[in-house]
Amino acid sequence: MGHFADETTLSRMDDNRWQGHINGQWSIGDNPNGGYLVANAMTAIQTLAPDHPDPLSVTAHYLRPGSPDTDCDIEARVIRSGRTLTTARASLSQESKARIEVLAAFGDLTSPGAPNAVTEQLTIPAPDIPPPEDCPVRSADEQGVDLPLLSRMNIRIHPDQAKSGHGDALMSGWIRFQDDTPPDTLAAVMFLDAFVPSVFGVLGVIGWVPTLELTVHVRRRPAPGWLQGQFRTRDLAEGRMVEDGLLWDSEGQLVAQSRQIGLVMQR
Amino acid sequence: MGHFADETTLSRMDDNRWQGHINGQWSIGDNPNGGYLVANAMTAIQTLAPDHPDPLSVTAHYLRPGSPDTDCDIEARVIRSGRTLTTARASLSQESKARIEVLAAFGDLTSPGAPNAVTEQLTIPAPDIPPPEDCPVRSADEQGVDLPLLSRMNIRIHPDQAKSGHGDALMSGWIRFQDDTPPDTLAAVMFLDAFVPSVFGVLGVIGWVPTLELTVHVRRRPAPGWLQGQFRTRDLAEGRMVEDGLLWDSEGQLVAQSRQIGLVMQR
Repeated sequence: MGHFADETTLSRMDDNRWQGHINGQWSIGDNPNGGYLVANAMTAIQTLAPDHPDPLSVTAHYLRPGSPDTDCDIEARVIRSGRTLTTARASLSQESKARIEVLAAFGDLTSPGAPNAVTEQLTIPAPDIPPPEDCPVRSADEQGVDLPLLSRMNIRIHPDQAKSGHGDALMSGWIRFQDDTPPDTLAAVMFLDAFVPSVFGVLGVIGWVPTLELTVHVRRRPAPGWLQGQFRTRDLAEGRMVEDGLLWDSEGQLVAQSRQIGLVMQR
Repeated sequence: MGHFADETTLSRMDDNRWQGHINGQWSIGDNPNGGYLVANAMTAIQTLAPDHPDPLSVTAHYLRPGSPDTDCDIEARVIRSGRTLTTARASLSQESKARIEVLAAFGDLTSPGAPNAVTEQLTIPAPDIPPPEDCPVRSADEQGVDLPLLSRMNIRIHPDQAKSGHGDALMSGWIRFQDDTPPDTLAAVMFLDAFVPSVFGVLGVIGWVPTLELTVHVRRRPAPGWLQGQFRTRDLAEGRMVEDGLLWDSEGQLVAQSRQIGLVMQR
């Protein structure tokens, strides 16, 4: 079992309550990565949806930062259980304070969305970027905070975008687990919250970019190997940004799309 | 009071429960427009967030179609109430069956996201399209269903995109209330769910495109007058599509962004 599965393992307390532990190795500075908190909440939902292991749509509201190296309590409930979809919500709290609230629809990405679904396809091709070995590791210096999560995730940034203030609100690169565990669909959701904010590309490292809400649509179970990410902010007003993300697998197939609204605050 | 405010008026039953009425004039075929159901749920949330009238982030899961000309029950609860944000959820049911589940963060779009928010701006400009008077009304014939909602919303489609199967999964046009009530931020959310599915542009009218989940980020209170919409589907796989929408006001300012995951089913 890899670190990710190991460090999102929950103990079930009753039908709707779980206890887990937020490991400090998935943090940015002192804050556990939001995607890692969401992964813990999704693990509880997966238990409630045995036939629907894949998060087709996951929305997480980030209510308060998580606490590293601290237990967590998760409450999760099915809202509707259907043939092709389980809709559920989950709340993750630590020390009796709500940290994230999740609303999600889980399904099975190896089956069509419905018996009479169309077979036509449209997709977003992966852009050409330098291979991982030519992309520097996400830098702790550049962001001015420690990055314990680099002990768990290998995050590479496009060499042209590794310096903040490069001129475009665009951030591309590669990601995989440090222990080389093949990524699953929960990992895809988490990885979409693990790159450098793309707004740094145009503003420089201006301070803190806390996510208010993140929605991910997972489109395909990822092939093993590196995942390629691309993040772009086209919309920033009154210190609130909307950032879009895309993730492709090592076969070049689109794995997931994300969008988040976050604050952009001065240091 | 316009039809929209009138036909989303709720009676409060207790702290967390409201009763309303789903008017049949907001329907596509026999199904109330999903955005109209969401508007009713948001009206309940607004009551719980008096200082935060604007939906900064709204996610709605469409559990079952609504029933027209039928009462609805709404349960809404605050998840977290902060200085700049109220996070809340709401469930709308009819005849004791859950129809939509909403998770939202409400704020005040006339204030910055935080005291130390950056003042830089990025935005997405409105594309040039023919003016509303040169755009045909959304056609009931073209889609093969009655459109009672045209009695409430004036929906115009770009002349090049009014015929399905025009070759691109793109749909543009204009929208406003038929009674000329100026749009508010709840209307912006609803309007983003009232256009023709953009996937019809490439597939033709292939059947039914039920939304599974819709997330809208409202970015600005709209100026009075027409709103311009643009919808694009770049990602369709296994009969599940991800469609992105943009809405600008009559001053050409970006009002809201939407993304939905929906099924694309053969007739």
